[in-house]
Amino acid sequence: MIRLRLDVSGGQAIRVPLGCEDSHYLVDVMRLKAGDSLEVLTRDNTVWSAVLEPNHMVRLQTELDRHNRLPRHVTLYQALLKGDHFGAVVDRATQAGVGRIVPIVTARCIVREVSLNKRARWSLLAKEAGEQSHRIDVPDIGDLASLDSLVPGGGAFGCVLDPRAAYDRPWLEPQHGPVELVVGPEGGLTPDEVSRLQSVGFRPISLGPRVYRAENAGAFATVLFLQ
Amino acid sequence: MIRLRLDVSGGQAIRVPLGCEDSHYLVDVMRLKAGDSLEVLTRDNTVWSAVLEPNHMVRLQTELDRHNRLPRHVTLYQALLKGDHFGAVVDRATQAGVGRIVPIVTARCIVREVSLNKRARWSLLAKEAGEQSHRIDVPDIGDLASLDSLVPGGGAFGCVLDPRAAYDRPWLEPQHGPVELVVGPEGGLTPDEVSRLQSVGFRPISLGPRVYRAENAGAFATVLFLQ
Repeated sequence: MIRLRLDVSGGQAIRVPLGCEDSHYLVDVMRLKAGDSLEVLTRDNTVWSAVLEPNHMVRLQTELDRHNRLPRHVTLYQALLKGDHFGAVVDRATQAGVGRIVPIVTARCIVREVSLNKRARWSLLAKEAGEQSHRIDVPDIGDLASLDSLVPGGGAFGCVLDPRAAYDRPWLEPQHGPVELVVGPEGGLTPDEVSRLQSVGFRPISLGPRVYRAENAGAFATVLFLQ
Repeated sequence: MIRLRLDVSGGQAIRVPLGCEDSHYLVDVMRLKAGDSLEVLTRDNTVWSAVLEPNHMVRLQTELDRHNRLPRHVTLYQALLKGDHFGAVVDRATQAGVGRIVPIVTARCIVREVSLNKRARWSLLAKEAGEQSHRIDVPDIGDLASLDSLVPGGGAFGCVLDPRAAYDRPWLEPQHGPVELVVGPEGGLTPDEVSRLQSVGFRPISLGPRVYRAENAGAFATVLFLQ
């Protein structure tokens, strides 16, 4: 079943005009015709069965169950990466089930700014990866933040990926409640940065003896947190 | 520390002439000079501290510990995918720690052959991703197999990713012993194919209510098996 995210509130028999891109996706790429069924994810994170109507309209029918809500909310503070690697993070972490992605600048970041274009592209990647994985809630992309501004939110388990940390798994307990995860750039965080994060409550954790590409680390950790 | 895989047996003070590509990688890409240190992974899966010498030679010094051996062996039977997506599987699954990757042909595969070029490229991707993740044992790429020929090896936990399977986690027990995992192509396996696999001992498992891209599914499952 094709899923589409639309920026509307859910409601029975609501008709929604499609934007150009969504219409192109449904009609030209996915070959849907008027009368064909699809599912729509709404702004309020509900999922509706829906029908494609003529003239680029979609009509919502009934609300579907919420069985695919994620078991916990993971915020990924990801250092900016070279090339299009941050986009790869957005794609993979969204598939893995991350709830929010916040780009951060750290000492070893080579890229240090986020253009409006790039940010729009990341939002699109999150939307597409979320639809493809049948997620109800697509992660939002936060504003660029500095590492120094990070403090774990109340009740959240704050942690920072650090290959020097001990290789154990107690950080997978408790298995409920929000997670805030910091992942560094290609060259890693500096020891000073890890110390600073530790001093405000982020726990250094290791995913084991392997060293993951920056594009994979956040997604792999999220898979474990959401197991 | 830079790691390089060389097709030699390990041994103290052994001198190894570098091939063009490895020499280019160390000298031109990584900017190593004669006298600089690196680590070498040998054919017999040992890791050695080593030094770059003049005239494209590397000298092995002492064997390093084996702390980063993987806790269990995962074989990934991955259906052929469109475009370069199989290469993405090799890259990500290697990073995740898979031990062997065997391409398979299934009913819904669009690509149905593997050229020698493609296979050589996959081996290179596995080597690079393995070195980057500091793995001792880089996965080998098996010959193309048909789905019908698959039977789990003795003592292995055989399983097949199937979004229709129940969403539970008992398949993460036991946490030891080899795993043989079958992952379908973009359109999934047919119900008949899943039944056939089940009849020879592969258990249908689900990674949860989300649907992963074929490029991610094998890697994400491997992360869980190796947790």
